[in-house]
Amino acid sequence: MSLLVVGSVALDSVVTPYGHRESILGGAASFFSIAASHFVPVRLVAVIGEDFPEEHVKLFAERNINLAGLERKSGGKTFRWKGRYIGRMDAAETLATELNVLGSFKPTLPAEFCSTPYVFLANTDPVTQLHVRRQLKSPKFVLLDTMNFWISGARAALIEVLKEVDGVVLNDDEARSLAEESNLIRAVQKIAAFGLRTIVVKKGEHGALLFRDGQLYAVPAYPLETVRDPTGAGDSFAAGFLGALAERGDLSFAGQKLALTYGTTVASFTVEGFGLERLMTTTRDEIDRRQEALLSFIRV
Amino acid sequence: MSLLVVGSVALDSVVTPYGHRESILGGAASFFSIAASHFVPVRLVAVIGEDFPEEHVKLFAERNINLAGLERKSGGKTFRWKGRYIGRMDAAETLATELNVLGSFKPTLPAEFCSTPYVFLANTDPVTQLHVRRQLKSPKFVLLDTMNFWISGARAALIEVLKEVDGVVLNDDEARSLAEESNLIRAVQKIAAFGLRTIVVKKGEHGALLFRDGQLYAVPAYPLETVRDPTGAGDSFAAGFLGALAERGDLSFAGQKLALTYGTTVASFTVEGFGLERLMTTTRDEIDRRQEALLSFIRV
Repeated sequence: MSLLVVGSVALDSVVTPYGHRESILGGAASFFSIAASHFVPVRLVAVIGEDFPEEHVKLFAERNINLAGLERKSGGKTFRWKGRYIGRMDAAETLATELNVLGSFKPTLPAEFCSTPYVFLANTDPVTQLHVRRQLKSPKFVLLDTMNFWISGARAALIEVLKEVDGVVLNDDEARSLAEESNLIRAVQKIAAFGLRTIVVKKGEHGALLFRDGQLYAVPAYPLETVRDPTGAGDSFAAGFLGALAERGDLSFAGQKLALTYGTTVASFTVEGFGLERLMTTTRDEIDRRQEALLSFIRV
Repeated sequence: MSLLVVGSVALDSVVTPYGHRESILGGAASFFSIAASHFVPVRLVAVIGEDFPEEHVKLFAERNINLAGLERKSGGKTFRWKGRYIGRMDAAETLATELNVLGSFKPTLPAEFCSTPYVFLANTDPVTQLHVRRQLKSPKFVLLDTMNFWISGARAALIEVLKEVDGVVLNDDEARSLAEESNLIRAVQKIAAFGLRTIVVKKGEHGALLFRDGQLYAVPAYPLETVRDPTGAGDSFAAGFLGALAERGDLSFAGQKLALTYGTTVASFTVEGFGLERLMTTTRDEIDRRQEALLSFIRV
């Protein structure tokens, strides 16, 4: 089963207590597609500028990633994000954002992409997410990511698109804001009432929660001794989750629980290196071995 | 198997977003002994003042709690704590502490208590904890609780007593301070190097970690829709853990993993009511049913 991702490809500059990197490959769709390509063929829809290094395009192409939807805008500059993490690195501080070509991103899917069964609508303006959703033909499972900027600034549009997707992935603070409810369990129940059957709540080093048709499942994070850069953890978490769902085709509660553990495993690789460094060198075999280690860490 | 607890019995005044209570029964040893009495007979060693209500003494006596070590100091006043929790209630703000009779608490165990197999040294001055530890005759398992006040103020004494116990229970910030290490997994490994075979790290609403002989296990917190008062959660967590160990007598990694889930279950009752209100009305049957619900919430 193939998997479509629509989102940002970026050039990131990142500082953490472990070092810094300038203009490295980043963006939600980059993390997602590289991570998900360990599970199923990926179709990428994104926009880049003239300045985007050809070597990054090659990295995607060398994997199982279809680039028919990667638009290079002549005369444009690639989306850039600059941020830093301090102390325990539990939140990114954005130092600069240059939207550039992403500012006018209003993707039209290649015709052959419209019937992709599994779809990830990465974090962006919910109006754009809805525009993409409406081009899809009977998808099996559409997962949407969002952030506080849209929850507070484009609430009505966000709730509109949430009614047309199968699942949402957000962090615990975002879940509380979206539901306007401080207790996380009640917050998740309120979000379900928007019409969503699957809600995935990421809690960083504290793991994740899955809510599926009224049933709850919780998984702790994989225990890591070294976290170098949290950038992309959420997108690769979503990739492990949706990648495992697409690979196995089991959308039951049991299937989604297992998929959540794959999300946890994949994200644990991402944060061990800067940007995509660690995720690039990971093999499927290594993912499966760590997945087994995670299961033994959480099984009573 | 019986279980000994040495610690504070207090009169607490607490404010949370859900209301307030004045001079209710509190203190680490109260929470621990009431909670642990659902599992095994408990022996309580603590000190109270003349002002301590006889009805509270009756509450202990009506349960399976041996009060031969409960000293009432004539002319003295009971330890009092006043605190409040705001917002998401993740930390208590202490408004007032009156040590009173607790200030000179230097317990001599009743002779028949010295050979109790399972022992909880509740949070207090590590010098006092060591004084108690040295009165014990070949215990099977001694668990120690501590807090940041002793970690920073009595570090050498704390490390001395840690070498003579089997396990320590602390929250994640305390673990980081004790180990002087910001990564929690590395922190736990450093604490183990003090000579401890069992380390239990409580993370509040994010669950708990167990480290036993180099092996790690993580459990999420039981998903609660209403948390009214977090006071005593840590002590009842320790009671569920040690109570289950004492009841089953299985100190293996598997036995301690299961015990950790009982700690999680028992603490979930405590925080649903003010002080001991909810824990008082809980039955063993109700604990076992919630334990099953917790296991289905965490099993993949």
